[in-house]
Amino acid sequence: MKMDGWRASARRILKLSSRPAPAPRFAPGRGNPARHGTIQRNPEFATINSDDISYFRDLLGEKNVIQDEDALLAANMDWMRKYKGSSKLLLLPRSTEEVSQVLKYCNSRCLAVVPQGGNTGLVGGSVPVFDEVIVNLGSMNKVISFDEVSGILVSEAGCILESLVNFLDNNGFIMPLDLGSKGSCQIGGNVSTNAGGLRLIRYGSLHANVLGLEAVLANGDVLDMLGTLRKDNTGYDLKHLFIGSEGSLGIVTKVSILTPPKLSSVNVAFLACTDYLSCQKLLLEARRKLGEVLSAFEFLDEQAMDLALNHLEGVRNPLPPALHKFYVLIETTGSDERSDREKLEAFLAHSMEEGLISDGVVAQDIQQASSVWNIREGIAEALMKAGAVYKYDLSIPVEKIYDIVEELRNKLGHLARVVGFGHLGDGNLHLNISCPQYDDAVLAQIEPFVYEWTSKHGGSISAEHGLGLMKADKIFYSKSPAAVKLAGPQSHT
Amino acid sequence: MKMDGWRASARRILKLSSRPAPAPRFAPGRGNPARHGTIQRNPEFATINSDDISYFRDLLGEKNVIQDEDALLAANMDWMRKYKGSSKLLLLPRSTEEVSQVLKYCNSRCLAVVPQGGNTGLVGGSVPVFDEVIVNLGSMNKVISFDEVSGILVSEAGCILESLVNFLDNNGFIMPLDLGSKGSCQIGGNVSTNAGGLRLIRYGSLHANVLGLEAVLANGDVLDMLGTLRKDNTGYDLKHLFIGSEGSLGIVTKVSILTPPKLSSVNVAFLACTDYLSCQKLLLEARRKLGEVLSAFEFLDEQAMDLALNHLEGVRNPLPPALHKFYVLIETTGSDERSDREKLEAFLAHSMEEGLISDGVVAQDIQQASSVWNIREGIAEALMKAGAVYKYDLSIPVEKIYDIVEELRNKLGHLARVVGFGHLGDGNLHLNISCPQYDDAVLAQIEPFVYEWTSKHGGSISAEHGLGLMKADKIFYSKSPAAVKLAGPQSHT
Repeated sequence: MKMDGWRASARRILKLSSRPAPAPRFAPGRGNPARHGTIQRNPEFATINSDDISYFRDLLGEKNVIQDEDALLAANMDWMRKYKGSSKLLLLPRSTEEVSQVLKYCNSRCLAVVPQGGNTGLVGGSVPVFDEVIVNLGSMNKVISFDEVSGILVSEAGCILESLVNFLDNNGFIMPLDLGSKGSCQIGGNVSTNAGGLRLIRYGSLHANVLGLEAVLANGDVLDMLGTLRKDNTGYDLKHLFIGSEGSLGIVTKVSILTPPKLSSVNVAFLACTDYLSCQKLLLEARRKLGEVLSAFEFLDEQAMDLALNHLEGVRNPLPPALHKFYVLIETTGSDERSDREKLEAFLAHSMEEGLISDGVVAQDIQQASSVWNIREGIAEALMKAGAVYKYDLSIPVEKIYDIVEELRNKLGHLARVVGFGHLGDGNLHLNISCPQYDDAVLAQIEPFVYEWTSKHGGSISAEHGLGLMKADKIFYSKSPAAVKLAGPQSHT
Repeated sequence: MKMDGWRASARRILKLSSRPAPAPRFAPGRGNPARHGTIQRNPEFATINSDDISYFRDLLGEKNVIQDEDALLAANMDWMRKYKGSSKLLLLPRSTEEVSQVLKYCNSRCLAVVPQGGNTGLVGGSVPVFDEVIVNLGSMNKVISFDEVSGILVSEAGCILESLVNFLDNNGFIMPLDLGSKGSCQIGGNVSTNAGGLRLIRYGSLHANVLGLEAVLANGDVLDMLGTLRKDNTGYDLKHLFIGSEGSLGIVTKVSILTPPKLSSVNVAFLACTDYLSCQKLLLEARRKLGEVLSAFEFLDEQAMDLALNHLEGVRNPLPPALHKFYVLIETTGSDERSDREKLEAFLAHSMEEGLISDGVVAQDIQQASSVWNIREGIAEALMKAGAVYKYDLSIPVEKIYDIVEELRNKLGHLARVVGFGHLGDGNLHLNISCPQYDDAVLAQIEPFVYEWTSKHGGSISAEHGLGLMKADKIFYSKSPAAVKLAGPQSHT
């Protein structure tokens, strides 16, 4: 599953001070006209000319200035192949100084820019909408420092999440976040989209773990907020504004992050429940009984399991023969194998007695653990293979999370397949509607229904994917008008 | 120990949008002229007249408009009796609407305002400098809601931390923060100062746990950011700016916070080390061996213990007869008594073998646990009783934390007593210099030495206390000029 990536929103820099801001140069109001008919290219933006190319070649070296059509095709298209830009230029800076020079130049030339990391985002935020210059951070992929006493890692923004995971593993630490897209996504994109993922229930969000950032503003100014301290109460903590700002405030170039020690004992259980209420009760039980060792609590419904079994290679039903209504994946991570296992077994026995689970399996080795994780992490890929998919990423109070799936299923009838899965422990539902092809009649049944329902029930229309191009104009469903106003006139365009 | 409280900085509201901001009405540039000779009252501010009093009486009711001298004396003076204002008016609003009306009126009348919570701050931020109107949130002390499924608590800002602790205890949950001042400090003040405290090593900072806020801006506008969701990636997360902004952006009126389930097994060990390097190695060992159950790692030096034994009532030396160079307090919190105890014992046995600890005791019951916690939490009070005290709250990389204590001790010689203690697990040193009375000759030896040393070693001059009046002009020791500039022209006055 690919769940994050830079939402390279081309809004202008938020003016934090009352001083005159530099002229806006990130393109205000981006959109794919094919799908978002109302958004037009801002004619104030210049188009690339040969002088620009010469400048960038001198600055970055010829091989870091990409005009090759195949490479541009990949950089223009998102992972879902749903959003497609028409940029003619991809730049690969290798240092903060180069990023700064690129942005300064683009600002002076009035060229729109889209920052890009691993391009694994799901909301159309990591690709150009029109002909923006793509600035990809992939060449800034060095670990800068690691402090084994404190567990603090400092790296460049283009480091791929999995490469950081591997680096830390060798040092006895882990990253506090884990995503299905870890093989492609970059830490800078993770930070810029406030990626959530599979370990949030244990280690909290990036607001909890990012200790410092370096970012380059649209005018080329380098903002050094690269603290490496766990605590620093000296004035406004501006880095939090950049976490989840989807590239709209600047380009993150370096990240300092607190990493937890690697613990020796990991257990994975895959369980079946007959109804949603049981999943919910199981979550409460797990919080109480597994307490400090609980590291994941994921769920998927029958539809999601059916898709995984039919479309993913090498996936077998772990609880045969028939499908169950709901599945829950529970992971524990601790420092004492025997006591962790005992804890898990006592929890499972009690849950069985209470009738919360109807079947279940505990992975006996790392292969078995991987194989159930592959089901959960493979659902997004299975959905892609099944045809067109409308994806919604909702935060909803846990009690109500499955109501929207059932209501939408009733509403759509045989028109489409409604699939629910996600991070139940965090109240985060991934609601996916699968159909043979994209169909405006289906979409009209889904939107604005999904947004209105979520708003009415106190939820958020984007739990972790961000707004991107897909939901840029939907911010009012989840934020108060006063908050949107305070964030500045560009925060919802 | 009282460690937090509102730093009621009277700076003007940060202008987040590019629209014209309301006229600034929080007093720019506050200072106690007696101690901070350069700060003068801004003559633009009006003074209270009888019409103002009538307005506030009509709005709030007579008993919530305090002009009584004794009550004003208490509200004008900070906990350390070091900072003293001369306000003639204390207001006690009972609702967000009343706070809004108060600020709107003060804004229109050009009256300076200082917000106040439990007034337990240590940097002169929670009391007036001149004659600001004191707005105390103590009457807004209701729990609004608590969701037992998710553990999300919503309360008014004036709730005393300990009353929330007790409320949650009855529901099987705990607050993610714990401070020595919990009997007086208010949750709104905790949020506004980003209070750290004793559980940060386990549950993270308030940036990790606060899910939403309601705040009133200086012009009376109510900003609703009171989300109750664990995840919400829809636009800039503005609440983070208010966390730790010390009242300078507005008055926090409601708080939504994620609370962890209460776990049944708590163990406390009090250990002696012969040198600082052993304390540091012990921390590494504890992270590895105690892993997910470690909930506190505090340290104090011989000087701190000596003060506690001499000035606190009912405190006895837990590791008699002589004093040791260093003491470490370790707490574990988990869900399984037997395995937690085994884990702790294995860790202690191994640390003894390695020579990291020279003596130690494990509390056998809650009284014994309380008695060692009282030593650690009572040091601030002991220092107050011992005479004048210069307090510094520093984040320093763990390897270097005790170097500054020793350097300062050498520098001051017999002039003063240098005391080091704090949250070693978070890299947070409380450096205190105790002398018979305040003495400018001593202060000249301490400052700017402490700030320069901390800055040179990549530390922060305020880990958790905030800047307040004490360090408002010292921000450049810990923040880059670009970050200070971006935060706005008022952020360092």
